[in-house]
Amino acid sequence: MSVQYTRFLSNLTAFMRASEIRELLKLIEKKKVISLAGGIPDPSLFPIDDLTKITQEIIINQGQTALQYAPTKGVTIFRETLVDFIRRMRGIRVPNPECIVVTAGSQQALDIIGRVFINPGDVVLVELPSYLAAINAFRVYNPLFVGIPMDENGLRTDILEEKLKILKNEGKNIKFLYTVPTAHNPTGLTMSIDRRKHLIELANKYDFLIVEDDVYGSLIFENVDVTPIKALDKNGRVIYVSSFSKILAPGLRLGYVVAEEPITDIFEKAKQSLDLHASTLSQFIAMEAIRRGVIEKNLPRIRSEYRKKRDIMLDALEENFPKGCSWSRPIGGMFIFIWLPEQIKTHELLSKAIERGVVYVPGRPFFVDSTGENTMRLSYSYPSEENIRKGVGILGSLIKEELK
Amino acid sequence: MSVQYTRFLSNLTAFMRASEIRELLKLIEKKKVISLAGGIPDPSLFPIDDLTKITQEIIINQGQTALQYAPTKGVTIFRETLVDFIRRMRGIRVPNPECIVVTAGSQQALDIIGRVFINPGDVVLVELPSYLAAINAFRVYNPLFVGIPMDENGLRTDILEEKLKILKNEGKNIKFLYTVPTAHNPTGLTMSIDRRKHLIELANKYDFLIVEDDVYGSLIFENVDVTPIKALDKNGRVIYVSSFSKILAPGLRLGYVVAEEPITDIFEKAKQSLDLHASTLSQFIAMEAIRRGVIEKNLPRIRSEYRKKRDIMLDALEENFPKGCSWSRPIGGMFIFIWLPEQIKTHELLSKAIERGVVYVPGRPFFVDSTGENTMRLSYSYPSEENIRKGVGILGSLIKEELK
Repeated sequence: MSVQYTRFLSNLTAFMRASEIRELLKLIEKKKVISLAGGIPDPSLFPIDDLTKITQEIIINQGQTALQYAPTKGVTIFRETLVDFIRRMRGIRVPNPECIVVTAGSQQALDIIGRVFINPGDVVLVELPSYLAAINAFRVYNPLFVGIPMDENGLRTDILEEKLKILKNEGKNIKFLYTVPTAHNPTGLTMSIDRRKHLIELANKYDFLIVEDDVYGSLIFENVDVTPIKALDKNGRVIYVSSFSKILAPGLRLGYVVAEEPITDIFEKAKQSLDLHASTLSQFIAMEAIRRGVIEKNLPRIRSEYRKKRDIMLDALEENFPKGCSWSRPIGGMFIFIWLPEQIKTHELLSKAIERGVVYVPGRPFFVDSTGENTMRLSYSYPSEENIRKGVGILGSLIKEELK
Repeated sequence: MSVQYTRFLSNLTAFMRASEIRELLKLIEKKKVISLAGGIPDPSLFPIDDLTKITQEIIINQGQTALQYAPTKGVTIFRETLVDFIRRMRGIRVPNPECIVVTAGSQQALDIIGRVFINPGDVVLVELPSYLAAINAFRVYNPLFVGIPMDENGLRTDILEEKLKILKNEGKNIKFLYTVPTAHNPTGLTMSIDRRKHLIELANKYDFLIVEDDVYGSLIFENVDVTPIKALDKNGRVIYVSSFSKILAPGLRLGYVVAEEPITDIFEKAKQSLDLHASTLSQFIAMEAIRRGVIEKNLPRIRSEYRKKRDIMLDALEENFPKGCSWSRPIGGMFIFIWLPEQIKTHELLSKAIERGVVYVPGRPFFVDSTGENTMRLSYSYPSEENIRKGVGILGSLIKEELK
C-alpha cells in the first residue's frame, strides 16, 4: 500500500468500517487514483545529498553513541541545539534544555499531553474543524470536546469567551485548548495576532492551558506575522508542540514539546513507559542538519515549491468549482479547505470521486460536533502540478453534476 | 548525563523521590562510578562499518521512501523480511506480514498491549521478579498484578496453576501472563521446555493470553533448548514481543509484536494515535542488516563477548561474595541476579555502594509483591572486564562489612 493512503486511511477510520475502507482501497489501487488526501511532504524536496553525508559521518564518528540508548527527554546536546534553533526560527525563548522533550513526531507529543492532562470528562477545547489525529489522540482519554468556530482570522476568540463563561458556570473542568494557529490543519487558516493575544488573556482569566501545535510555523509563504502564541506567553500557559516532519523528513519520526520544567518532567515519566526515548540516530541526524544549516538552506526551496502548488490549486479551484463553493486561501502549510453547497455530503461523494480517479479527505471527521458534512480537505504538497490540475478538474465536474 | 544512568534512573523512580535520585546522580557524576546497573549493550559490538555502508546506500538510493511517512504496522517489505527472519532465528511461523506490528522498541509493544488489553482490575500475571519497565508500562492501565515465583527452571507453573484456580473461583478476569522465558530480566533464568508446554496448557485451560517477551532469545551462549513459547502455540494464545535493541542497536528504537491478525489490527489502530509509525529510516536499516546477513554475522561476536563477561562476573562473585549469598547462572542475556542474606536491604545499601564507586539495581522494584529487599541485579554487558572485577570486588567487601 502506497504511503499516501496510510494517512488517508487514518482519516477515514473515524467514520467508516474497516470493510468499507478495504473496498475503497481496492478501488484506489485498481484505478491509480490521484491523491489530494494525505498531508504528506513532497519527497523530492528532502535534502538527500546532505542527509547522506551527515548520516555517514555520524555513524562512522559517533556510532557508539548515536546507535545507543539515549535519555528519555532526548539526546542532551540535541536539546541544547534545539533551544537555539527554536529561538532563531520562531522567536521562542526556551529557558533551558530540560524544558524540551523530544518525541516520536508531534503525534506522540499529543498522545502524551492527552495521557498526562485529561481526566475523563475534562473539557478540551478545539477548533471547528480541528486536526483529526489530535482529536483521535485525545479521545482515548475520554475528554468532553467543545468545538469553537473559526473564520478567516482563525479561532473565534469572542465565541470562545462566551463558551468559557457557560462552561465555568456549569462547573466544568476546562483542561486545555488545542490549536494549530498557523496554516491550520485542515483549513489552512491562520490566527491573527490580536486573536493570539486575546487567547492568552482568556487562558489566564479562565485558567486553562493552551496546546499550540506549530508544525507548519516555518512553512509560511507570505509576509504575515505568525509569532507563536508561546512567544507571547508570560505565564507558562502554553505547551508548544512542533516537528521535523514538514521541514526535514517525516520518516525520522521526530517532534518535540516545549513547556515549563515541572510539566516536561511529568512528560518524561510518561514517555519512559511509552518507548524509552526517540530514535537516537534520528536525533543526531536532525541535530547535524540544524548545525550545518541544512534545514534553513532547504526551507526556501520547500516554501517556494508549496507556494507554487498552492497557487496552481487555487487557480484550478477558481476555474473548475461551481458557484456556491468557497475555500480558504492559506498563507502557508499544505491544505486548502472547501465549503460546498449544503446538499453535498462529501463522505457520500467520496466513492464516486475515487471511481473517477481522485481522492480527498471528507471534512466531517475534523468537526467534533459532527457538522461539516459539506466540507472537504485538499492537500497540494504531495501531488504533481499536473495531478493537482487534473484532480481538481475531476472534482469540479463531479460537484457540478451533483448540483444539477 | 551518561546513558547508562538514564536506564538506571528509570529503575529507581519506582521507589525513590526525584530529589533523592538527583542526590545520587550528583554522587555518581562526582565519583566516576562503575555501573553494573543498566541493561545496556556494549557499543563496541555495534557493526559500525556495515551500518555506515547500509545507511549511506539507503539514503542515496531509496531516500525518498526511507525518509517519508510509512504504514502504521511498519514498512511492508520490512515486515515481509521479518516473517522470514523470525522463522529462521526463532522457529516461529508467522502466517503473513499483517500479523506483525513494528514498534518503537519492545517497550512500545508492551505499552500497546497494556493499552489494548487491560481494563482496571484485570489480573495480569507476572514473574516474581519481573521486568520493571513492563510492570511500569502495564501499571498505567491499573491491572491487579499477581506474582508467580520462579526457580532455576523459570516460572513455577505448578504454583501458577494453584493461583489460577483461586483466581477463577474468586471470579477474577485473568487477562494475560507476561513472561521473559529466555535469559529473563532481571534474573537471567530460563524457563524449561516442559514448563513452556505446561504454560500453554494452562493458558488454554484457564483462557488467558501469554505475552512472551523474547528480546534475549538470540543472545544465548549455551546449548540449551530455548524454543519460544510462540513456536509451541497452536491456538493463537501467545503475543510475541521482540526487539533489535540487543542484537543490532538500541538507538534505532525498533521492536515488533507478532499476534493473530485481528489483534494486530487493533494494535495498529492504537499505534496510529501514539506515533503514526516507527522510524522509517530505522526500519530500512534493520531490513538491510537482515538481508545482508549483518545481524547473523555479528551475533556470534556478541554472544562470545557477553559469555566471557558473564564468566568473569561469575568468577568474581565466587571470589568476593560471602557465604549466604547466591546467584543465578544465566545461559544468555545480560543479567545476574543475587540473593543476599535477609538482613541486607539492597535499596538501603545503594548509596554506600555509590560512595565506594559502584552502582547496581536494587531488586525490590522488580517484585510486584514488594518482596525481594535482599536482592540485586547486576549487568555484565556494558562494563569492561576490569570494571566487572573491580565493581564486584567492591560490592563483595561492602556486603561482608554489613554482615559483621
